[in-house]
Amino acid sequence: MKKESIIALLHGPDHPGIVSQVASWIYDRNGNIDHADQHKDPEANIFFQRVEWTPYDASEKSLEKESNAFKSFARSTLEMSASVVLSTKKPKVALFVSKIDHCFHDLILRFKANELNGTLACIISNHEDLKDAAESYDIPFYYTPLEKNNKANAEEAQNKLLKELEIEVVVLARYMQILSSEFLKAISVPVINIHHSFLPAFAGGKPYHQAYNRGVKIIGATAHYATAALDEGPIIYQDVTQINHRNSIIDLIRKGKDLEKSVFAQAVRLHLNNRILVYNNKTVVFD
Amino acid sequence: MKKESIIALLHGPDHPGIVSQVASWIYDRNGNIDHADQHKDPEANIFFQRVEWTPYDASEKSLEKESNAFKSFARSTLEMSASVVLSTKKPKVALFVSKIDHCFHDLILRFKANELNGTLACIISNHEDLKDAAESYDIPFYYTPLEKNNKANAEEAQNKLLKELEIEVVVLARYMQILSSEFLKAISVPVINIHHSFLPAFAGGKPYHQAYNRGVKIIGATAHYATAALDEGPIIYQDVTQINHRNSIIDLIRKGKDLEKSVFAQAVRLHLNNRILVYNNKTVVFD
Amino acid sequence: MKKESIIALLHGPDHPGIVSQVASWIYDRNGNIDHADQHKDPEANIFFQRVEWTPYDASEKSLEKESNAFKSFARSTLEMSASVVLSTKKPKVALFVSKIDHCFHDLILRFKANELNGTLACIISNHEDLKDAAESYDIPFYYTPLEKNNKANAEEAQNKLLKELEIEVVVLARYMQILSSEFLKAISVPVINIHHSFLPAFAGGKPYHQAYNRGVKIIGATAHYATAALDEGPIIYQDVTQINHRNSIIDLIRKGKDLEKSVFAQAVRLHLNNRILVYNNKTVVFD
Amino acid sequence: MKKESIIALLHGPDHPGIVSQVASWIYDRNGNIDHADQHKDPEANIFFQRVEWTPYDASEKSLEKESNAFKSFARSTLEMSASVVLSTKKPKVALFVSKIDHCFHDLILRFKANELNGTLACIISNHEDLKDAAESYDIPFYYTPLEKNNKANAEEAQNKLLKELEIEVVVLARYMQILSSEFLKAISVPVINIHHSFLPAFAGGKPYHQAYNRGVKIIGATAHYATAALDEGPIIYQDVTQINHRNSIIDLIRKGKDLEKSVFAQAVRLHLNNRILVYNNKTVVFD
Repeated sequence: MKKESIIALLHGPDHPGIVSQVASWIYDRNGNIDHADQHKDPEANIFFQRVEWTPYDASEKSLEKESNAFKSFARSTLEMSASVVLSTKKPKVALFVSKIDHCFHDLILRFKANELNGTLACIISNHEDLKDAAESYDIPFYYTPLEKNNKANAEEAQNKLLKELEIEVVVLARYMQILSSEFLKAISVPVINIHHSFLPAFAGGKPYHQAYNRGVKIIGATAHYATAALDEGPIIYQDVTQINHRNSIIDLIRKGKDLEKSVFAQAVRLHLNNRILVYNNKTVVFD
Repeated sequence: MKKESIIALLHGPDHPGIVSQVASWIYDRNGNIDHADQHKDPEANIFFQRVEWTPYDASEKSLEKESNAFKSFARSTLEMSASVVLSTKKPKVALFVSKIDHCFHDLILRFKANELNGTLACIISNHEDLKDAAESYDIPFYYTPLEKNNKANAEEAQNKLLKELEIEVVVLARYMQILSSEFLKAISVPVINIHHSFLPAFAGGKPYHQAYNRGVKIIGATAHYATAALDEGPIIYQDVTQINHRNSIIDLIRKGKDLEKSVFAQAVRLHLNNRILVYNNKTVVFD
Repeated sequence: MKKESIIALLHGPDHPGIVSQVASWIYDRNGNIDHADQHKDPEANIFFQRVEWTPYDASEKSLEKESNAFKSFARSTLEMSASVVLSTKKPKVALFVSKIDHCFHDLILRFKANELNGTLACIISNHEDLKDAAESYDIPFYYTPLEKNNKANAEEAQNKLLKELEIEVVVLARYMQILSSEFLKAISVPVINIHHSFLPAFAGGKPYHQAYNRGVKIIGATAHYATAALDEGPIIYQDVTQINHRNSIIDLIRKGKDLEKSVFAQAVRLHLNNRILVYNNKTVVFD
Repeated sequence: MKKESIIALLHGPDHPGIVSQVASWIYDRNGNIDHADQHKDPEANIFFQRVEWTPYDASEKSLEKESNAFKSFARSTLEMSASVVLSTKKPKVALFVSKIDHCFHDLILRFKANELNGTLACIISNHEDLKDAAESYDIPFYYTPLEKNNKANAEEAQNKLLKELEIEVVVLARYMQILSSEFLKAISVPVINIHHSFLPAFAGGKPYHQAYNRGVKIIGATAHYATAALDEGPIIYQDVTQINHRNSIIDLIRKGKDLEKSVFAQAVRLHLNNRILVYNNKTVVFD
């Protein structure tokens, strides 16, 4: 039912005529633009575009060819950064988890219900607690234990796995370990984390305890790309819910779980639908 | 500070190349696209576009000329309906009100604070209660009393006023009279109404009483274009708030007032910023 | 960690001294009130109270005894309706489902995570599609097929099951059949339904299609007690989310699924925590 | 229409029987409890209650007498802190403002519409910009200019005014000055401030700029009691709204204005309805 299409994300210094050049390039090759959205950051003078089109010939081979042609055009003619993907390609996802399992179950069920445009290729965990659950979902589970004072070993094993499985995006479903900057560099794929507060409030550990102690009237959750600076990466999506003085920390954790699930899923969906561009530690989200 | 620009709203049957044709037309005349947003309704096969651009020469005279040239282009070449406005032109607004005054004050204060891209040209009321308030805001107030069994007289006076003042949009700030279909036809400008429920629930009179009696847990407000069918016009914006068993009808009315103000203002803002296209009794809102 | 307590829900005609009488009764028997919440409907002149207390002796036997003593007190001295439950008793729940499975998975996972104060005793379905899933969750699954023109047979089988398993509440997780008024009468336990619209808007079938066609800007979900009048029972909880012109019916269904899950779970939680009183086809929710 | 009543706010170390003692005291004197709400902080072992009742004789004189009798009872028998007010008494409010006027207009209009249970006694400002506006609303305006390096003079003048006018609560409607701890101590009445971020995120100056630079996807507003520690006082109410990459700082400021108005008004309403208790730098809000 869904037509096959090409999706390009462009960004670079703004100059007149980009919209026209892109549209004409597609039209001249008998493609048909399905969606196009653009944004200019007037301060940074950067232009962003997400364009999705159906080429004249939508065979797999033609899609590849057109996609490559557009990449060349974007770089040489437009002089812009471009990532170009085919709607036929479902990115391979690795889910990292520890013991807390609500985001784990929620995301897996969404993959199973075809809500997410990707393939959940594996579960990686520093604990064995969710091994059986992963297997009942029929998803490969890899146990990469963290020896004391030796996180590097686990990260090396994880990196090896990601490379072997050709993983294209890592999602941290309440993975309770800080990823080293070396690891982030080595894997060189985007990593999406869910933090259980409305950042920048309550960064770091135990945000619900921090929120309870401060006496705030709202709690939140934040999905962001992980960077070497803990809880400071580009924010993708946030949401909050009201709390009151009757709510104990246990209530905050329970209410927060629902927020974490929906915020995390929304961020993963946006990423897998190629709707996010990152610049200056911020995101442009073409929703 | 704000650059002068031209804003076009286009819609019509979809065909390949529209985006490219529009972008090229602007680029070929040395204009620079500031924003562009499009939408396709795949079922109705209708294409919608909002495009805002700065022409090479942004003098008043040139803006007029370019605007007219685009209109011709849209109609003859693209074969689409087009409304084209200049960012230098502030539409003239008439505010209708009866006695309930929260939307009245709220909207006037937003005009005074330059939050809304229009000129509040007059207040028209079937009561004299808000005459002094209108005068203290320094806005012309017109009293068009409704004689029993003779709404036509008042509507004729109102239509005359709107024509004389060259009003381009009417906003009903809790105006407690139903506009006749003859009047709507005669004035031939858009009319924005605020209804105090989340339509289609609780259409008609006393929606807060209806909501209280049904025992709903949310109440809402709906801004829509008025049509001959009461409360059935195209919806522009809606919002809701939670209520509970402790809330009396008086509480619902109080909470609802805040919703009505913000929903009404948001709809008026979107209209005055030329962000709304109407088709099939629905709206496309380029926000 | 959690102390054992008694929870009473009272309601009846208001008269002075009820709060004092209840509090004194508990205090005189050396109980300690943990929570107390009351409400008066001034129009209907009905008083409602939820009171939770720890008796002096919190043994199972004493809890039973105190609970019965309070029931007598409420009926004879206060002349009010009273339902009294022990925090040690977890109500037995039957989940009805057809083929659509998001509320099914969501609720089961919440039971497994001890988020809900009840025991999920069985799954009952008019289809066999979710049999394997139920078994992998280790929950008894009963298939009660609906023969054409013979819903009574299935309902009889279902009623028998509910009686045998001593079910105390039925939850309809998108069960796509209308329950007959005879069945509702026969089972004589509360039934919680999730409807995929903000009632009373879009009652009946295909509410997302109705919403799409009307062009609303918000969609919602409503959890309510099922009564003989379809979609007209007392509303427990409602929530909504914003949509826009870009959203297809498929998007509405996807977004709605998240609403349905959270609204349904919230209603089931409130019921299982004995926080809901019903009167005049409305609910008092002591949250 | 509204019956006259007495409202007591109690708090202190928890011990059994408080609810019973309070209810019996009222019942024994032929009073009728209209509302009662209580809360226990299990960690701090503090009990909180808000109770509203109609005494047998609701004359002004009797209300005073009963109110004083309850105060004695609370202190001597219950050994709890108690503030007791009469529904017939409307607290006198002083509104501080600088130049930014949206919260100023909004709050004044709510007082005029009888939405708030208090008397707006005066406007105090460090600028003369809103003098005419205050006068058109018929509210006394006091100009207390801040000389460079001499805030003490202005604060002394302000304190004198508050004492003369017998002000019972100060509300800071975007008053752009930090109140000294000496001033807060001297005036010895509660001070409600509106901060334009979801605290503790973006405390201090220019929160919308901070939010823009961090790239958050929600912005918020926080109403709190002012204390000597800037932006760290007990939080009364908070709310947020979604933003996206298209929103400039100017958009954030505009959207934020609506949040500030509603959050500020809600906090002032709760305070004037005697619904807030403060302890451990947090609030218990009996809503």
